[in-house]
Amino acid sequence: MSELNRQIILRRPVQGMPAPEDFELVESPIPQPGAGEVLVRTIYVSLDPYMRGGMSREERVGEVMIGGVVGQVVASRHPEFQEGQFVCQYVGGYGWQSYGVVSGEELRVLDPGLVPISTSLGVVGMPGVSAYFCLLEVGKPMAGETVVVSAASGAVGAVAGQIAKLKKCRTVGIAGSREKCDYVVEELGFDAAVNYRTEDLDAELARTCPAGIDVYFDNVGGPILDVVMAQINTGARIALCGSIAEYNDPIGTLQGTRINRYVQGGLARMEGFNQGQYKDRHEESLALLAWWVRHGKLKYREDIIMGLEKAPEAFIGMMQGRNFGKLLIQVREDPTQDS
Amino acid sequence: MSELNRQIILRRPVQGMPAPEDFELVESPIPQPGAGEVLVRTIYVSLDPYMRGGMSREERVGEVMIGGVVGQVVASRHPEFQEGQFVCQYVGGYGWQSYGVVSGEELRVLDPGLVPISTSLGVVGMPGVSAYFCLLEVGKPMAGETVVVSAASGAVGAVAGQIAKLKKCRTVGIAGSREKCDYVVEELGFDAAVNYRTEDLDAELARTCPAGIDVYFDNVGGPILDVVMAQINTGARIALCGSIAEYNDPIGTLQGTRINRYVQGGLARMEGFNQGQYKDRHEESLALLAWWVRHGKLKYREDIIMGLEKAPEAFIGMMQGRNFGKLLIQVREDPTQDS
Repeated sequence: MSELNRQIILRRPVQGMPAPEDFELVESPIPQPGAGEVLVRTIYVSLDPYMRGGMSREERVGEVMIGGVVGQVVASRHPEFQEGQFVCQYVGGYGWQSYGVVSGEELRVLDPGLVPISTSLGVVGMPGVSAYFCLLEVGKPMAGETVVVSAASGAVGAVAGQIAKLKKCRTVGIAGSREKCDYVVEELGFDAAVNYRTEDLDAELARTCPAGIDVYFDNVGGPILDVVMAQINTGARIALCGSIAEYNDPIGTLQGTRINRYVQGGLARMEGFNQGQYKDRHEESLALLAWWVRHGKLKYREDIIMGLEKAPEAFIGMMQGRNFGKLLIQVREDPTQDS
Repeated sequence: MSELNRQIILRRPVQGMPAPEDFELVESPIPQPGAGEVLVRTIYVSLDPYMRGGMSREERVGEVMIGGVVGQVVASRHPEFQEGQFVCQYVGGYGWQSYGVVSGEELRVLDPGLVPISTSLGVVGMPGVSAYFCLLEVGKPMAGETVVVSAASGAVGAVAGQIAKLKKCRTVGIAGSREKCDYVVEELGFDAAVNYRTEDLDAELARTCPAGIDVYFDNVGGPILDVVMAQINTGARIALCGSIAEYNDPIGTLQGTRINRYVQGGLARMEGFNQGQYKDRHEESLALLAWWVRHGKLKYREDIIMGLEKAPEAFIGMMQGRNFGKLLIQVREDPTQDS
């Protein structure tokens, strides 16, 4: 192969909102798999808010941006993988590059006949798994309760809200545009949605959650969290899945309303979450998520950007809320899709 | 009886730190018990931070200040109570007055031969019950973990810290004077204590909690909470029992460091608490607390102020951290004590 591996690396530690100059596209020889490893040709790269975390660190400079990937096996030195298979590295992930070498232990084989392979980075991947466990195990919603989900049209929020509906909860989304709000109500079946950019969030939450808020599935943190906290019911659960509104600032530097008294007075539980806590149960959730997708119970939307070189710009847009649905970079043609 | 009932009422809704003019001493006829009720002559009145909550409310104006009481039965129209018995109304409580009429259902008979009757407002009363359940059921400390307790020499904190020691935890107190810090270490057996008024809390917590903080038993809220949050371990539990530093301000008006990211990133659990959640288990905790006191495993300190008319000043002092130990107003001689 005379083709080179294209990679996007972190050029400098990022401060505040990332900028295009924080990234650099470089080329290097395509790596070869060692014993137990697999060489994968990237088809999709996942862009997710959590990636912002490590980007402030000096030691990451020069490294390829991390992230989940879907691709096709080019060469395998692991007995369970053969050339041509479609695979996904959904935890960790070799990230923003057109080829990657991975230990077979970190790969899942995909079945293109079941659900589209791209969904293994979204609704049937890490975002879906996060929504599933964070809602059910941290939020613990009961039928008839009111569940509020922020970033409701996003990769995680859309799944969390739909599962809340499957659990017979009143489900209200918070999103950043009228289009996104319409989508979560009309396409995903949420009971209501509030556009936090243009509407009075406090008043609209009061109107759409007349019985108060029992579960808040939070993907954003920041001032939206403060507004929600003022309307929680006694015994509410605040499931902290993400805080995209705060990732550009070092932890402990942002100021806001003191929310501990809402927790105290509301006898509420606010709890952090990471999918790694449920590693042993990923398979069961992925099977159920795929089942739900295949049977039309779980809808999803992908925001696919063509070309690896577009990843920095797409990532910055996501941090500003400009994506609509699960953000993916498509590196090359997806052979499983009719085009 | 020609004696009158002396009562301290709320004179106006309190804004910010209470002032002496917010209270008024009034006199009225001693009430008579109806069917099922008991007339009690007050010996001790409990002053507790939670009372600040209702004092901002217009509808409380003209009402007697609430609070737990210990007294002696003067007349009973309830079959289980006889004149001369010592009793305690430790939940709710007829409050700041020299006599009160109470439903027998709300009274506990005290055994002066077991522990001093005043302790039924402190270590063997609501503060002890709160410390017990909030630490064990919300904080869930495990042997060897590090537990930090704020207001460590206070009625609740002192019990929480000693129970943490009984559970074999490294226990570090936060208090507002050198004298209080010395007390919790030397008398109560905490491993260390930090004076938040004169020491660098962040540095001293790092020094005294070298393995990080697993459980924070919080009685104060405010900026101390922010400092503690920056040092929690993964999986930490933040048991919110009180927030005396915030009670003078309406909920939702104080600003501070955003702590939700510490909860999220630390996979921590921050949970509110109220003793009412464990009402069915109060008896078991009171029995155990009394046992521990009687066997020297639980020490306590009372800050007893003589004279009902001193209650407003004492309450204000408590809100400023000037009390040292469980604050009680003694209304008349305690017949169970040698004087």
